[in-house]
Amino acid sequence: MSPIKVGLLGLGVVGGGTWKVLTRNAEEIARRAGRRIEVAAVAVRDMDKARRLVGDQVLVTQDGMEVVRHPDIDIVVELIGGDTLARELIMEAIAQGKHVVTANKALLAKHGNEIFAAAHEKGVMVAFEAAVAGGIPIIKAIREGLTANRIQWLAGIINGTTNFILSEMRSRGLPFGDVLAEAQRLGYAEADPTFDIEGVDAAHKLTLLASLAFGIPVQFDKAHIEGISSLAQEDIAHAERLGYRIKLLGITRRRADGIELRVHPTLVPMECLLANVEGAMNAVLVSGDMVGPTLYYGQGAGELPTASAVVADLVDVTRLQAADPEHRVPHLAFQPDAMDDTPVLPISEVHSSYYLRMRVQDRPGVLADISRILSEVGISIGSMFQQPSGDAQADIIFLTHEAREGSIDAALLRIRTLAFVHSDVTRLRVESLI
Amino acid sequence: MSPIKVGLLGLGVVGGGTWKVLTRNAEEIARRAGRRIEVAAVAVRDMDKARRLVGDQVLVTQDGMEVVRHPDIDIVVELIGGDTLARELIMEAIAQGKHVVTANKALLAKHGNEIFAAAHEKGVMVAFEAAVAGGIPIIKAIREGLTANRIQWLAGIINGTTNFILSEMRSRGLPFGDVLAEAQRLGYAEADPTFDIEGVDAAHKLTLLASLAFGIPVQFDKAHIEGISSLAQEDIAHAERLGYRIKLLGITRRRADGIELRVHPTLVPMECLLANVEGAMNAVLVSGDMVGPTLYYGQGAGELPTASAVVADLVDVTRLQAADPEHRVPHLAFQPDAMDDTPVLPISEVHSSYYLRMRVQDRPGVLADISRILSEVGISIGSMFQQPSGDAQADIIFLTHEAREGSIDAALLRIRTLAFVHSDVTRLRVESLI
Repeated sequence: MSPIKVGLLGLGVVGGGTWKVLTRNAEEIARRAGRRIEVAAVAVRDMDKARRLVGDQVLVTQDGMEVVRHPDIDIVVELIGGDTLARELIMEAIAQGKHVVTANKALLAKHGNEIFAAAHEKGVMVAFEAAVAGGIPIIKAIREGLTANRIQWLAGIINGTTNFILSEMRSRGLPFGDVLAEAQRLGYAEADPTFDIEGVDAAHKLTLLASLAFGIPVQFDKAHIEGISSLAQEDIAHAERLGYRIKLLGITRRRADGIELRVHPTLVPMECLLANVEGAMNAVLVSGDMVGPTLYYGQGAGELPTASAVVADLVDVTRLQAADPEHRVPHLAFQPDAMDDTPVLPISEVHSSYYLRMRVQDRPGVLADISRILSEVGISIGSMFQQPSGDAQADIIFLTHEAREGSIDAALLRIRTLAFVHSDVTRLRVESLI
Repeated sequence: MSPIKVGLLGLGVVGGGTWKVLTRNAEEIARRAGRRIEVAAVAVRDMDKARRLVGDQVLVTQDGMEVVRHPDIDIVVELIGGDTLARELIMEAIAQGKHVVTANKALLAKHGNEIFAAAHEKGVMVAFEAAVAGGIPIIKAIREGLTANRIQWLAGIINGTTNFILSEMRSRGLPFGDVLAEAQRLGYAEADPTFDIEGVDAAHKLTLLASLAFGIPVQFDKAHIEGISSLAQEDIAHAERLGYRIKLLGITRRRADGIELRVHPTLVPMECLLANVEGAMNAVLVSGDMVGPTLYYGQGAGELPTASAVVADLVDVTRLQAADPEHRVPHLAFQPDAMDDTPVLPISEVHSSYYLRMRVQDRPGVLADISRILSEVGISIGSMFQQPSGDAQADIIFLTHEAREGSIDAALLRIRTLAFVHSDVTRLRVESLI
């Protein structure tokens, strides 16, 4: 069978990785796919550099549209990122009746509904395994592996940069700023790390996972997002003492009244597998009503792991490109006419347990007053400890039982006004998971 | 679209679970599959009991062939187990041009080559996600998720019974026999537990995983199999002290000269995720050359988790049943004309590190003599400890660096003849994994 022809948009880290994977494992891939997968065209900024990598047999151009519209190209692989040019190129590829493989989570989290609708209309595939958790086949697991289940919730470490930073902060006792600087030196964090450390990248990915799990449209703008840049070293140490580790989790859960969709630092019990995912690794815990909890672990970023997912998509698309669209898996796991309009809940309606830390005047009655406020809004305390912090002050830490976040907000509003509370109240969420 | 019609052979634990999953999640499944999946016929021993479960709309018979040959049935689900009647029914289903879903690892490990060849010939699918690691979509992950990789090795906890027993032996310090009896009371072990505790069930599953990973035919008869029934409590304790846990692993690895295929108790470093998989849970670690290590975790057995995998296969088959065979994933991941004939290595050619324990006379020179023997066959010692065991005797434990198993055998042959060695030598394998 003649090779299938791929047009590569972008030859950066993941694009270069895709070239390497397709070249190095060409034979192994063809043994599986039943035909060879060949890059026939690349669109890049630096044509000389590209030429040195891909040789003379491949069309090299600076014009992405030339690749997208090229009659020989069967599948367009978009790896330039961003949501302007990438969006135009993908929409044009779809309009040309070409299948698309992309790693662009930001684009799909924001414009996925439009892109998938256009692809469905045109009868082409838009595959995006590489957009979430790099080399881990998590999209395939949720979309195809767990189809027998009503998925109840999922929670994932889906940003390697922040997991690396949190791992180092804990194991070496260093503050956030120092570890971030080191992560930048090592290439684990970008020069502008905002998207990673503020949780935006994780929220892009979580948005896609929630759609696949529950059959809801992508709704990035509804996600609650908190990053780790204001996380204090002492909270990591306190959590450790209480038997928890702090991880930046993307969590989505189906409740009777709506969908929780949130990214934030989370205390996770130390014996939980997720708590033991260290360094830049990723892992996603998915709970289905029939299968129970399942976990998927691996490298969530990097040249070759991400390219592994791109190429797995290429193999899938190669197999199914000539098939009837009805033989393919729907983009967002559910048939387009069977999507769910269950709303995403505001963060105040989320249910969680909470870690609260505050510095107070060390005198009788303080604990009673705070406990009374928590009790009056219906929050029950799971455990508490207090330690002197000098100057006749003490740090008090509460772990609450599960509560509605709105109730916690109401309590904190009152606690913050108490004269004997000398600091702001640090509030972190606690999830027992499995 | 009209429902697809399923014939269920067997309504025991997994068959009953499959009925429950299809019934309880009928709507969620249809939202994904695009059409309903209906059980139209069941073949069972106890027809009255079956009738009470499935009602009047379903054909109930004691004759499996009636289901297999029924013109209304599109997909046959074989859940009766064993390799005589199950084999005949599956072969007849294929001959009738029907797709098959099965959880029967014993059958596929022994007769998979013949069954898959017949299915390929006839252009039908034989899906078997439920045959390995229950609800974990591990077959999909290897067969479709990691297609970009040359898979290097995989190691899995793929038998829940033995993992439960080992977890209890370690955490409660109890001997094998006591824990087995308790596992039988709890339903984690069968009345005749031989297949589980002697590693045969794990070897069936490993045989299938090795084929999917490397594109080799199924070769159960080449697997090296050791169970846990002779594992001493004291080795679990010694391992713990050395920073390891003992797990029954199925391990398969591609080496230059052949494929390792082995099931045995294995010392795994405590910080490794696999070492922390406790109770009846399963997990498989798969390492690809591009993606690096990936791990898949979940419930490996039980009514609903296993049925979750059966139904996931039903959804896949429903989607692709009208597609050209070339649009489907090959049964053993690789195209039938691209299978690999790399031989499975005998256990003497396997490479591993080793844990050796022996009781010796506690006098000068003993350690020197043993060390010399190990050194003469080229085995280097990683660490050693000795503890007195009373009566002027001592227990010596060696951890070796990686060595060829044949060299270890040669050394043990000589060590066993030494007059000052008062016990047999316990030999366990040690794998660092990741």
